[in-house]
Amino acid sequence: MYKNAVVNLGSKCNAACEHCCFSCSPASTESMDKSYIRKLVSHLSENNNINVISFTGGEIFLDYPFLKELLEIVRPYKKVVTLISNGFWGISSKRTIRYFEEMEYYNVDALTISYDEFHEPYVKIEAIRNIMECSRIFPKTRVSLNMAVTKDKMSNRILEDLGDSILGIRVTKFPLMPVGEAKNIESDQFQHIYKLSNEKRLFCPGFEIVYHFNGNIYPCCSPAVFDTKLNLRESEEQTFERTVEKLHSNILFYIMRKEGFRWFINVIQENPEFEHIEIPEQFSSICNVCNIIFRNEENIDLLTPYMMEYYEGLL
Amino acid sequence: MYKNAVVNLGSKCNAACEHCCFSCSPASTESMDKSYIRKLVSHLSENNNINVISFTGGEIFLDYPFLKELLEIVRPYKKVVTLISNGFWGISSKRTIRYFEEMEYYNVDALTISYDEFHEPYVKIEAIRNIMECSRIFPKTRVSLNMAVTKDKMSNRILEDLGDSILGIRVTKFPLMPVGEAKNIESDQFQHIYKLSNEKRLFCPGFEIVYHFNGNIYPCCSPAVFDTKLNLRESEEQTFERTVEKLHSNILFYIMRKEGFRWFINVIQENPEFEHIEIPEQFSSICNVCNIIFRNEENIDLLTPYMMEYYEGLL
Repeated sequence: MYKNAVVNLGSKCNAACEHCCFSCSPASTESMDKSYIRKLVSHLSENNNINVISFTGGEIFLDYPFLKELLEIVRPYKKVVTLISNGFWGISSKRTIRYFEEMEYYNVDALTISYDEFHEPYVKIEAIRNIMECSRIFPKTRVSLNMAVTKDKMSNRILEDLGDSILGIRVTKFPLMPVGEAKNIESDQFQHIYKLSNEKRLFCPGFEIVYHFNGNIYPCCSPAVFDTKLNLRESEEQTFERTVEKLHSNILFYIMRKEGFRWFINVIQENPEFEHIEIPEQFSSICNVCNIIFRNEENIDLLTPYMMEYYEGLL
Repeated sequence: MYKNAVVNLGSKCNAACEHCCFSCSPASTESMDKSYIRKLVSHLSENNNINVISFTGGEIFLDYPFLKELLEIVRPYKKVVTLISNGFWGISSKRTIRYFEEMEYYNVDALTISYDEFHEPYVKIEAIRNIMECSRIFPKTRVSLNMAVTKDKMSNRILEDLGDSILGIRVTKFPLMPVGEAKNIESDQFQHIYKLSNEKRLFCPGFEIVYHFNGNIYPCCSPAVFDTKLNLRESEEQTFERTVEKLHSNILFYIMRKEGFRWFINVIQENPEFEHIEIPEQFSSICNVCNIIFRNEENIDLLTPYMMEYYEGLL
C-alpha cells in the first residue's frame, strides 16, 4: 500500500519565495543530519516494498555532491527515483546537459520543476526553458512543470514566454494554500475552487511516507501537512515498516481513510468545544481543511474522545 | 507487455478541425460495424492480459447510447477505462453532471479533453470550462487537457480564458504533425523541436494495439500511424493474442524496438533506391519520421531485403 517514500533534504534554497510552504531561503539551515539522511536512504533503498523514492527540499541541487551521493546509494536497488527542483541550474546549458546525463545514469524517472510568478524573481525563465529543451535529448527522465497560482498571479505570461520549450511537457497549475509564507498573502487571492458540499472531495487524496527536514515523518506530501501535528515519528531509529504500521493502526488515520473528513467536520460542527475551529465553506484543497483541523495538539485532544467512541463501535 | 487496447469507434464528429489527423467531420461516416465493435469490446474485456481499454473517435459522445452500451460490456471486468473527447457536451451543465455520474459508474479512470485554437470554432470554451469545473465534484475520473499547437496557434489565450477552471488539471501542448487534414497547414507552422542527432529520441515512444475505424489494427495510437502501412490486421476474426504475436514476431517491429529508427534511417540514407525518401533533419515528433518511412508499401518492400539480411544475422 505505501510504496512511495519522500525525503525532504533541507530548507536551504537559492530563492525566498513569498508563497513558500516551507519558508525556505538562502539563510535557512534547517536540515536532517547528513549522516542520518545517508542511513535513512540506505534503509529505504533496501526495502523491497518501496518502489519510488523522491527527493525534495529546499532546493536539492544546491548541494549537488550530496544529492549525487544519495542517488549513488539508491542506484543498485533499481527504484524509481523522482526529484523536485526550481530549476535554477538550468541557466548553464553545459551544467544542464551534465545533470540530465547523470539523472539518466541514476534512473531518475521524473523531474518536477516548480516555477511560477513567485519563483520568477529568483530563477530566470531562461533556466526553465533550457531544462525543458534539454529534456528532449534525454527521454528517460520525464520533466513536468508545477505552478502555484493565485488570482493575480496566474502565470499565464510565463507559459507564453516558455513558448515551444513546454511542448510535450505536462503543466499543472495548483491553487496556492495559505500555509508557510503564503499565510502572509492577502486572503482574497486564494482560489477556493472546492466546496464543503462536494462530498466526494472530502477524502485525503494520498497517503505517502514523508521524511521532513525538521525530523518529523508525515503521512503525505501536501504543503499543508507540515503545519499540522500529524507526525508519525516515535524514535530516531524507527523503521519504514513501523511507520507504515503506525499509519495503519492509528485510529485518526483509520477514520480519515474510512470516513473521510466529513466525519471530523460533523464532530466539529455539532459540538460546542470546537467553537474555535472554523471550517470554511469553500477552500483551495481538502488539504487546507486537514490543516485547519489538525494544526494543533489541542484540536486532536478534543477529537480524541469521539475517536475512541468510534473505535469502541468497531469492536 | 501489451496491456492497453484502443478502439477508434468512428470518424463522425461535430467538428471539422483544419488540423484533424483523421479528417473527421459531421459528414464522415467511416466506422467499424456496430456488431463487430460489440464483439471486439467483449473479446478485449474478457482478456485478462489487458488492463486498459480506451475509446476515441471521431467524437465518441455523439452516439452516447452506443458508447454506454460498450461501457456496459466492459464494466463487469473491472478494467481501467479511458475516453477522449472534444468536450462539446460540456455546454449543458445538467448533461455534464449526468455524464460524470455515469463515467464514475463505468469506472472511467481518465477523460482526456482535446481542445485548442483548432477546436475552438466548433466547441465553445464554456463547455470546456464546465467540464473542468464539474470534474472537481467527481474525483474518480481524472480529467486532463491535450492541445495541438502550431507556431501561430499556441492556444495561450485559451489557457488564459480557462482561468481557474484548469487548476489541478494536467495540460499538455503537443506540436502538430503534418498528417491528415494538417497536411494542408503551411509547412512553416510546424514546430520541429526534435533533431535527427538526438539519438535517444529515435525510438518508438510506445507500442499499443489500436483498432481503427477503417478496420485496420495499428501498433500505436500516434496520429501519424494511421497514414502508414503498419497494419497488423490479417482477418476479421483475429484475436488480440494473434495481434500481439504478430507485433512480436514481425521483423520490422523487432528492428524498430531493438535498433530504433536509426537503423532504418541509415539504410535509407546509404542506399540509392531510397533517394525518393527525404528524412528531415528536424521534426515535431519521431512519429513523423515513422510516417515518412512507412507511409507506403513501396518503401516497406524496398526495406525488406535489408530486414531479411538483419534477420539472417540473428540466426
